[in-house]
Amino acid sequence: MYSYKYLLDFTANVFLKMGCSEKDSAVIAEVFLAAELRDHASHGMIRIKDYYELWKAGRINVYPNVRKVHESPSTAVVDGDNAVGMVCAKRSMEIAIEKAKTAGTGWVATRNSNHFGIAGYYAMMALEYDMIGICLTNANPLVAPTFSISRMMGTNPIAVAIPAMNQPPFIADFATTPIARGKLAVAEKKSEKVAFGFVQDKSGQPSDDPTILKSGGSMLTLGGDRVHGSHKGYCLSSIVDIFSAVFSGANFGPFVPPSVAYLPVLEKKVGEGTGHFFGAMRIDAFQPANEFKSKMDEWIETFRSAKSAPGQERVLIPGDPEREAELRNIRDGIKLVPAIKDDLVKLARELDITFT
Amino acid sequence: MYSYKYLLDFTANVFLKMGCSEKDSAVIAEVFLAAELRDHASHGMIRIKDYYELWKAGRINVYPNVRKVHESPSTAVVDGDNAVGMVCAKRSMEIAIEKAKTAGTGWVATRNSNHFGIAGYYAMMALEYDMIGICLTNANPLVAPTFSISRMMGTNPIAVAIPAMNQPPFIADFATTPIARGKLAVAEKKSEKVAFGFVQDKSGQPSDDPTILKSGGSMLTLGGDRVHGSHKGYCLSSIVDIFSAVFSGANFGPFVPPSVAYLPVLEKKVGEGTGHFFGAMRIDAFQPANEFKSKMDEWIETFRSAKSAPGQERVLIPGDPEREAELRNIRDGIKLVPAIKDDLVKLARELDITFT
Repeated sequence: MYSYKYLLDFTANVFLKMGCSEKDSAVIAEVFLAAELRDHASHGMIRIKDYYELWKAGRINVYPNVRKVHESPSTAVVDGDNAVGMVCAKRSMEIAIEKAKTAGTGWVATRNSNHFGIAGYYAMMALEYDMIGICLTNANPLVAPTFSISRMMGTNPIAVAIPAMNQPPFIADFATTPIARGKLAVAEKKSEKVAFGFVQDKSGQPSDDPTILKSGGSMLTLGGDRVHGSHKGYCLSSIVDIFSAVFSGANFGPFVPPSVAYLPVLEKKVGEGTGHFFGAMRIDAFQPANEFKSKMDEWIETFRSAKSAPGQERVLIPGDPEREAELRNIRDGIKLVPAIKDDLVKLARELDITFT
Repeated sequence: MYSYKYLLDFTANVFLKMGCSEKDSAVIAEVFLAAELRDHASHGMIRIKDYYELWKAGRINVYPNVRKVHESPSTAVVDGDNAVGMVCAKRSMEIAIEKAKTAGTGWVATRNSNHFGIAGYYAMMALEYDMIGICLTNANPLVAPTFSISRMMGTNPIAVAIPAMNQPPFIADFATTPIARGKLAVAEKKSEKVAFGFVQDKSGQPSDDPTILKSGGSMLTLGGDRVHGSHKGYCLSSIVDIFSAVFSGANFGPFVPPSVAYLPVLEKKVGEGTGHFFGAMRIDAFQPANEFKSKMDEWIETFRSAKSAPGQERVLIPGDPEREAELRNIRDGIKLVPAIKDDLVKLARELDITFT
């Protein structure tokens, strides 16, 4: 078990050693650890190596000039200058919040960015300002639209954070596919099959093989198949892609650059880097903040007291499992599987720091 | 077969006879017919009787004062004064578009409204202004959250319309459940079973019975079950509910008033009427409009040319089926099943107009 503080300091040191500023390194480490704390380990320490390899390959910029390139009273476009995704994303969400302060709402589309960790982190930044936060991003193409066998989209997540008064905030943060990509990797490591409805093989046949992406297969959109509404998952994923990339001038759909160095840079570009989209909405642009937050308490209490199905302990509010994981992981520490630990030991040695 | 014009004029006359203004009647008729044209018959002529019965029961206001009750540079809250939903919704979307003209984006939450037909109609209003349009609404509670057997939410749809240049616009308009409520009614009329994954019985067991809602069953969220991501559908539906009702001061979740007169007025109120949420985003608040629209052409062409799965003719872009239906229904006419025709003949007689 590792303490939060140990992993946070180590992660910040990795990025300092790569040349990132102290401030940027701290931001990056905080987002990586937020994923670990919230039990989204697929976006946590396991990914540090990918960022490091991209940097070694000269494919990521540790001295970026993240800047606004266009704006209106309630909107802006940010060019991330190929920075580590967290650096672009945090700055972009800050701009969305600034815009919301004067215009009621703020909306920022960001291009020329990279993988940014968990979307929920940026949505949650709005909460302390009594705002609702929204964050979308596109990602490497692994997902086929309904009726297709081509990998056209990423798992394109949606995160929305909504403050309450005495209840904890409502926090939704989910891929627009039935499962996140990382769940396939976990099943593969355990030599397990996955449920049908997550992936298809290269000819579009249903598959339960978590390694199917390596042989031309693709992930399915939320809904799974047409009968069960996969076209709705396709709509959602498309909307995330268009807001993230076409609004910003980033690469869309199949042209999103790889977030790992072992995949080559794509030949065709239709924009700059990876794209994100951020929103901040002042609650009091709609209702007095305290009235809204009390009403959210009532909403949460109402849904929490819905009858649970037999065999189910309780009905959850979006954000409950992650908040409980945070408390547990802070208290008990964070466990890393041996393969991830080994990667980090090796990486530390190369950077002349320690990880034990 | 009925011509578009015949049904449009008839529908406008029904609402004129009920006391709606000429302008309001025209709006209402246009939205009803937009549903018929786009093959969303579940939101078309079949619903006129429900609106009429609500009016007869004194539960809907045909002389409304739809008005802004709060605003910021990019937002507003509208009180619909218990009007026919279309009247509140069209006015609200107009306000969102006005806000976007000066602030870059416009966001309107509407309370004290009623059933408003298809969400896509209002999202599409933004297109002619070179804006992206968004529309959400909550609805009568029929849907159970993940792990629950309580009906807590409506089929809460999301509509997003995005303009392109030479390609037709991207138009997504979908319920956050695997199927719309109307599909169950269709299966019931045909005495058919439905696929598993749409509904559950009153104890939370999977069911293929389209009449199960009458015996305490509930609809499932997009994803179907927890393994296949029903918690993501629950997140989406919740977000639609909160944006529509908590931002506006309408009734949320299980307290949304019935859109049919044969169900009694609910005892408990947590707000005013049904709630909607509207967004309009100027494209040029992000990118020059022509550049964005050309890029959307490229996006659409890229996705349209994705490889289709064996047995599938082609990969669709959101909005394709509805646009094709529109052309066909304008050309060939609109078919009404005998039961709907009978209802309309009867209703016409009561209002002293004709329907044949």
